[in-house]
Amino acid sequence: MRVALLAGGTGGAKLAAGMQEELGSDLAVIANTGDDIETLGVHVSPDPDLVTYWLSGEIDAERGWGIRDDTFTTFERLKQLGAPSWFGLSDRDLAACLYRRQFLDDGGRPTDAQAQIARGLGVEARVLPMADTPVRTQVITPAGTRALQEYLILDGGQPPVEGVQLEGIEAAKPTPEVLEAIAAAEAIVLGPSNPVISIGPILAIPGMREAIAGSHAPVIAVSPYVAGAVVKGPTDRFMEGIGRPTTAAGVASLYAGLIDAMVVDEADPDPPPAEIETLAAPTLMEDAPGRVRVARTVLDYAATLASP
Amino acid sequence: MRVALLAGGTGGAKLAAGMQEELGSDLAVIANTGDDIETLGVHVSPDPDLVTYWLSGEIDAERGWGIRDDTFTTFERLKQLGAPSWFGLSDRDLAACLYRRQFLDDGGRPTDAQAQIARGLGVEARVLPMADTPVRTQVITPAGTRALQEYLILDGGQPPVEGVQLEGIEAAKPTPEVLEAIAAAEAIVLGPSNPVISIGPILAIPGMREAIAGSHAPVIAVSPYVAGAVVKGPTDRFMEGIGRPTTAAGVASLYAGLIDAMVVDEADPDPPPAEIETLAAPTLMEDAPGRVRVARTVLDYAATLASP
Repeated sequence: MRVALLAGGTGGAKLAAGMQEELGSDLAVIANTGDDIETLGVHVSPDPDLVTYWLSGEIDAERGWGIRDDTFTTFERLKQLGAPSWFGLSDRDLAACLYRRQFLDDGGRPTDAQAQIARGLGVEARVLPMADTPVRTQVITPAGTRALQEYLILDGGQPPVEGVQLEGIEAAKPTPEVLEAIAAAEAIVLGPSNPVISIGPILAIPGMREAIAGSHAPVIAVSPYVAGAVVKGPTDRFMEGIGRPTTAAGVASLYAGLIDAMVVDEADPDPPPAEIETLAAPTLMEDAPGRVRVARTVLDYAATLASP
Repeated sequence: MRVALLAGGTGGAKLAAGMQEELGSDLAVIANTGDDIETLGVHVSPDPDLVTYWLSGEIDAERGWGIRDDTFTTFERLKQLGAPSWFGLSDRDLAACLYRRQFLDDGGRPTDAQAQIARGLGVEARVLPMADTPVRTQVITPAGTRALQEYLILDGGQPPVEGVQLEGIEAAKPTPEVLEAIAAAEAIVLGPSNPVISIGPILAIPGMREAIAGSHAPVIAVSPYVAGAVVKGPTDRFMEGIGRPTTAAGVASLYAGLIDAMVVDEADPDPPPAEIETLAAPTLMEDAPGRVRVARTVLDYAATLASP
């Protein structure tokens, strides 16, 4: 089954890892680039790289981010020389970001840089940046507008969120590879990542919702809420910031009109309204078998929804 | 005594280390940037950095280049992703080159980038790039013109040298810091680096010879020939390439009209002609005490030459 999976941070990336086990190269992950940042002289693309490291098996799964057993030698030295120190990059992570920057400076596309990085690390699935032109997520707080990474790292993700802006979104468009992956998909899955700052920017790209709506494949959202709470990250603050309930029902409201069905956790206290077809199942991806189990659940469900 | 030392690779950098022991911040090293290269997305400045690592005490003195006990984690990863692999950079070395590239991209000068790097590493002496605009040394061989690093690394420094070109030299000028260091110097020393590709590019900058000639300080060259042979590097090939004897006398001929005196090795079989005032002394810098001894020899000699 050919699947297009929209993903941002940890939840979507974990599901991608589980799905790759089942689908191999039939999986295309469309990854949020709204988190991208230029720092330390390199181009950091946190979500596409996080997905890539989950798919290459190099992720520090305990921590949920970064490369297992990586070192910080280059970064420590950069700090010693006077470089900004708030955004840390481990050596192998930095290598990918430096490679990407040079690739882009040489006139290459982010899509091709990511493909090259994934290929170099032996990743089977495709990892597709959502767009090749820059989109930058900005967080509106009472103290002003902050770039997303500054909000998450410098502010510790603590200030109340009053809204989100996506700089560059009007000029962005889905890449040919993204459109091809959606057109070819037999199931389209919105991964259990932050609906506001991970899946949101992907869906906000002009033409993206239309491309998904134009597909005959079933469109299934996987709720990031497990037993009523998000596993990791500031999803609640962002849901509140845009005035949505911090529940699977709140997530469903964001995807209304786009999705055919939703997978929610079996212990979800506040599932979507009855008009959305819903499968309740265990969705905690606590380890590799858990990730494959949830992937299998979603894929089996998709198969039942597929038009005959 | 305030000293301006012209230096390129190993010999000049070793002498700089010895002189720093004696002079501290009264030493200014004017370093060749003709070896600079942009690769792996960073700006490599081999001679200024080599001097800096000798001065910071981090040099791998056994090997004569690179940082002691450094790792290659980032570079190995870059290779894995598909980056060019012919020019290796260890992690801390790469950090400086990445820092420099970003510094320059932000509109900074190489002089200020190097000052920041040296400061970060606790270097007492000043390390001054010879110019802030790019000069690129090219080697003319029977097979065509090669960038210097390509000649040294890809060609292993093996093809015959038919000549040397300095791309960008017409537009280059000594930096204000270099001119100030020369004007303030009580001795100007041409270090025992390759006279053709290390000291040569420095002296070829329009206005540099005039600035040195305009100083009242004695100008002393230290021959790179020890007991008739160069300690390290392809000096002979380059001396032959421009038609000069591979001897201290050959070196003296390149500096004719500029230097007041020369320090040659006590075992030199072919010292400069009698019209050049010459001190014969042990010049092998085999270890830290040896470097200080040679520095002391040169400084004491300079003191005897200084105008009363």
